Amino acid sequence: MPSLTDLASHFGGEVVGNGNVAIDAVASLSEAKAGQLSFYELSLPKEVLLESKAAAVLLKKEVAADCPLPMWVVSKPRLYFAQVAKALNAKPARFAASITGISSKAFVADGADIHKSAAIAPLAVVEAGAKIAADVFIGGNAVVGGNAVVGEGSVIFPGTVLYPNVIVGKRCIIHAGAILGSDGFGFVADEKGRQVKIPQLGGLILGDDVEIGANSTIDRGALAETKIGDGVKIDNLVQIAHNVHIGDNTVICGCTGVAGSAVIGKNCMIGGAVKILGHIVVGDNVMITFSSNITKNIPAGESVSSCMPAMPIARWRRFVASLSD
Amino acid sequence: MPSLTDLASHFGGEVVGNGNVAIDAVASLSEAKAGQLSFYELSLPKEVLLESKAAAVLLKKEVAADCPLPMWVVSKPRLYFAQVAKALNAKPARFAASITGISSKAFVADGADIHKSAAIAPLAVVEAGAKIAADVFIGGNAVVGGNAVVGEGSVIFPGTVLYPNVIVGKRCIIHAGAILGSDGFGFVADEKGRQVKIPQLGGLILGDDVEIGANSTIDRGALAETKIGDGVKIDNLVQIAHNVHIGDNTVICGCTGVAGSAVIGKNCMIGGAVKILGHIVVGDNVMITFSSNITKNIPAGESVSSCMPAMPIARWRRFVASLSD
Amino acid sequence: MPSLTDLASHFGGEVVGNGNVAIDAVASLSEAKAGQLSFYELSLPKEVLLESKAAAVLLKKEVAADCPLPMWVVSKPRLYFAQVAKALNAKPARFAASITGISSKAFVADGADIHKSAAIAPLAVVEAGAKIAADVFIGGNAVVGGNAVVGEGSVIFPGTVLYPNVIVGKRCIIHAGAILGSDGFGFVADEKGRQVKIPQLGGLILGDDVEIGANSTIDRGALAETKIGDGVKIDNLVQIAHNVHIGDNTVICGCTGVAGSAVIGKNCMIGGAVKILGHIVVGDNVMITFSSNITKNIPAGESVSSCMPAMPIARWRRFVASLSD
Repeated sequence: MPSLTDLASHFGGEVVGNGNVAIDAVASLSEAKAGQLSFYELSLPKEVLLESKAAAVLLKKEVAADCPLPMWVVSKPRLYFAQVAKALNAKPARFAASITGISSKAFVADGADIHKSAAIAPLAVVEAGAKIAADVFIGGNAVVGGNAVVGEGSVIFPGTVLYPNVIVGKRCIIHAGAILGSDGFGFVADEKGRQVKIPQLGGLILGDDVEIGANSTIDRGALAETKIGDGVKIDNLVQIAHNVHIGDNTVICGCTGVAGSAVIGKNCMIGGAVKILGHIVVGDNVMITFSSNITKNIPAGESVSSCMPAMPIARWRRFVASLSD
Repeated sequence: MPSLTDLASHFGGEVVGNGNVAIDAVASLSEAKAGQLSFYELSLPKEVLLESKAAAVLLKKEVAADCPLPMWVVSKPRLYFAQVAKALNAKPARFAASITGISSKAFVADGADIHKSAAIAPLAVVEAGAKIAADVFIGGNAVVGGNAVVGEGSVIFPGTVLYPNVIVGKRCIIHAGAILGSDGFGFVADEKGRQVKIPQLGGLILGDDVEIGANSTIDRGALAETKIGDGVKIDNLVQIAHNVHIGDNTVICGCTGVAGSAVIGKNCMIGGAVKILGHIVVGDNVMITFSSNITKNIPAGESVSSCMPAMPIARWRRFVASLSD
Repeated sequence: MPSLTDLASHFGGEVVGNGNVAIDAVASLSEAKAGQLSFYELSLPKEVLLESKAAAVLLKKEVAADCPLPMWVVSKPRLYFAQVAKALNAKPARFAASITGISSKAFVADGADIHKSAAIAPLAVVEAGAKIAADVFIGGNAVVGGNAVVGEGSVIFPGTVLYPNVIVGKRCIIHAGAILGSDGFGFVADEKGRQVKIPQLGGLILGDDVEIGANSTIDRGALAETKIGDGVKIDNLVQIAHNVHIGDNTVICGCTGVAGSAVIGKNCMIGGAVKILGHIVVGDNVMITFSSNITKNIPAGESVSSCMPAMPIARWRRFVASLSD
C-alpha cells in the first residue's frame, strides 16, 4: 500500500504534514475513512474539510491554511484525484462480479471468437463472427451482433446492443442501454409522398478509450462510416446520427443531438442538450455552451452559445409579445 | 361490487340520479360499458357525454345540465377518477401475467434474496446480494445488479437495468428500458488533453411511490448519493445526472435533462424538455414551463419560462437577423 | 443480374454510355466496385465522381459533363438510388442471420401464435397470446408482451419492448431499445400534494411501413389509443406521449418530443429536437425546422421555426442582457 509520499513522488506535488499515511482508496471528504484520499476545492464548505476523517487531502496551496489533515498540495486537485483513483483501480461494484469466462447461461453462437480472459455474463448474446478481445466484459442481456469487434479491456454494460459489424476500440466503456450501429435516418419521398428508405450500409467505428453513456444512440453510416475518435466521452441520452465524425478527446454532455454528416473536431467541449445541424463542421477546441443550437460552421477555438435563460413568466410574456409584431 | 352511492359515501361528493348502479371498472366516456365509471370535463365534446353507455359519470356541478347518466358531482372529476381507478385496481394488462415466483428461465444468482411473493419473469437477471421484497415484479430481460434493493410492491418493467447497490423504494414503477445507477459523467483533462475518468463511487436512492418513465436514465453519485424523493414522477427519456437531489412529489415531464449536483425542491412541476444546469438550486413549489433553460437558482414558489415559440419562417428570419447586428 | 439498361427501362430515366454493365448492388461512389451503382450530387466533390470505380452512376443532367462512368440520368438521383437499393434488397448485415424458426434459447410462452416463417432469436421473449405474423424477425432480448400483434414482414430489433396489446403493422422496422406502449404520464395531485396515477388503459397502434428509431419511446393511450399512421418514420430518442395521433407518411427526426394528445397531420416534416406541446393540432404538410417549440396549432402547409442560432459568446451576452430590462 503506497504512502502519501510515495504517491506524491510518483505524480508530483508537495506533501505537507505526515507523508507516511497509507493510501489505498479515494473518497469524498465527508465519506472518507482511514486510508482514503480526498480532495478539497473552494466550492465545498470549509467545515467539510475541517471535520473530515480522510487520511489525506489533495488541495491547492491557496486553500491550505487551517487544514488539519496531511496535505498533498497540487495545481489541479481534481485531476490528481482522478489519476490516483485510476492507479488504485477505484471503481463502483461491477455487474456479475463473480463471472469469469463464458457463462453457461449466455448465448454465444458458433463461430464467435471469445478471448479466454473475457467474461460473458448470463443471458448475454454474442453472435457468429463477433470477436471479443482479452479482458472484455459483456453484461447480461447485452447483444453483440455478428462480426462486431470489441477491443481489449472494454466493458459492455447490460442491455446494450451492438449491431452487426460495429467496431469498438480498446478500453471503452459502453453504458447500459446504449445502442451502437442502428440504421441512420435516411428516406426520400416518392411521387406519392411515401418515404422510401435509403439503405444504411455503412459502419460504425469507435476508437480507444471511448465512453458512451446510458441509452445513448449512435447510428451506422449510410454508405461510409460513422467515426468516434479516441478518448471521446459521450454522456447519457445523446444521439449521434449517421456519417458523423467526432475528433479525439471531445466531450459531449447529456441530451445532445448531432445530426447526420456533421464533423466535429478534437478537444471540443459540448454542453448538455446542444443540437447540431447536419453537415455542420465544428473546428477543434470549440466550446459550445449548454442548450445551444449550431446552425452554421464554427471555426476552431471559438466559444458559442444560444441558450435562452428562463425568467419570471410575466417578463417572458413581454419578450414573446415583442416577437409577434 | 360497490354501487355509485357506496363510492360517493367513501370518497365524498354528491350523487344525482340512480345511485344503485354497480361500478366495477373505469373507462373513457366513449368506451365505457355497463358497470364502468367515466369522467366528463368541458374539454370534451358534449356529444361524447350524451351518447355514452357508461354506468355513471364524474363531473363538476356547472356541466351537469342535460346529463343523461347517473352523476357523481365532485369538485375535481379527474382526481376522483384516479382515486376510484386505484381503489378498483385498474391497470393495463401486465407482462408475464401468469408468472408467480421465480421463473425457471430467469437467472437468479446464488445469494440473491427473493421474497416468496415476488415474481421474476423469464430471462430476467438478478445478481448476487440483491434483495427483492414482497410483491415485487421483475420483468423479462431486466437486470438487477449485485446488492441492489427493490422495495415492497415495486414493478420493474422489462429491459430495465439497475446497477449494483441501487436502492429502489416501495411501490415504485420503473418503466421499460430505464437505466438506474449508471456512472455519472465526470472527467478532468490531463496535460495532454486526454480526459481522465473521475471514479463514480456514489449510490442512487429512490424513495417510495416513485415512477420512472421508459428509457430514462439516472446516474449514481460521484462520491455521495443521487437521491430521488418520495412520490417523484419522472416521464420518458429524462436524464438525471450524478449527485442530483429531487424533492418529494416533484413531477418532471419527458425529454427533460437535469445536470450534475442540481438540487430540486418538493412539489415542483417541471415541463417537458426543460434543461437545468449543474449545481442549480430550484426551490419548492416551482413551476418551469416546457422547453425552458434554467441557468440560475429559482426561489421557492416562482414560475419561470424561456420557451421560444415557433412562428412563420419569414418572421423568424427577421428575428434572427436582428441578432446579428 | 439486371443491366443498367434493364433498370432504366423499369424505373425510367435515360442511359448515357454503356448500358450493358450488370448491376447487383448499390454503394457510395468512393466505395463502389464492379457491379455496383452509385449516385452523384453537387454536394459531393467532383473528384469522388472522377475517381470512382462504380459500374454506373445516377445523376442529374446538369452535372453529367465529364462523367467517366456509364450514366443513368434522372430527375431525382437519390430517390432512384433508394428504389434500386430496395429492388436489389440492399440491407446491412442482419442480427442472428442464421436463425430460422423459433430458437430453442428463446422464451415463447404457451399460447403465443408464431407463424412458421417467423424467426425468434435466442433470448427473445414472446408472451402468451402474442401473435407474430409471417416473415417477422424478433431479435435477441426483445420482449413482446401478452396479446401484442406484430404484422407480416416486420423486424423487431434486439432489446426492444412491446407492452401487452400493442399492435404493430406490416413491414415495420422497430430499432433496438425502442419501447412501445409504456404508460402515459398522467397524474393528478390530491389534497396533500401527492400525485395519484391516472390509469393508462388505452392501446398503441402502429400502421404499416412504420420505422421507429433506437431508444425511442411511444406511450399507450390513457383511455383510448395512441396511433401512428402508415408510412410514418421516427428517428432515434424521440418521445411520443399518450393519445398522440400522427398522420401517414410524416417524418420525425431525432430527439423530438411530442406531448400528450397532440394531433399531427400527414406528410409533415418535423426536424430534430422539436418540442410539441400537448393537445396541439398540426395540419397536413407542415414543416417544422429543427429545435423549434410548437406552442399553438399550425395550419396545414405552413412552415415554422423558433430555432435560436448560436453566436459568439460576447454577442450572446448582449442579447441576454437585453432580456433583463
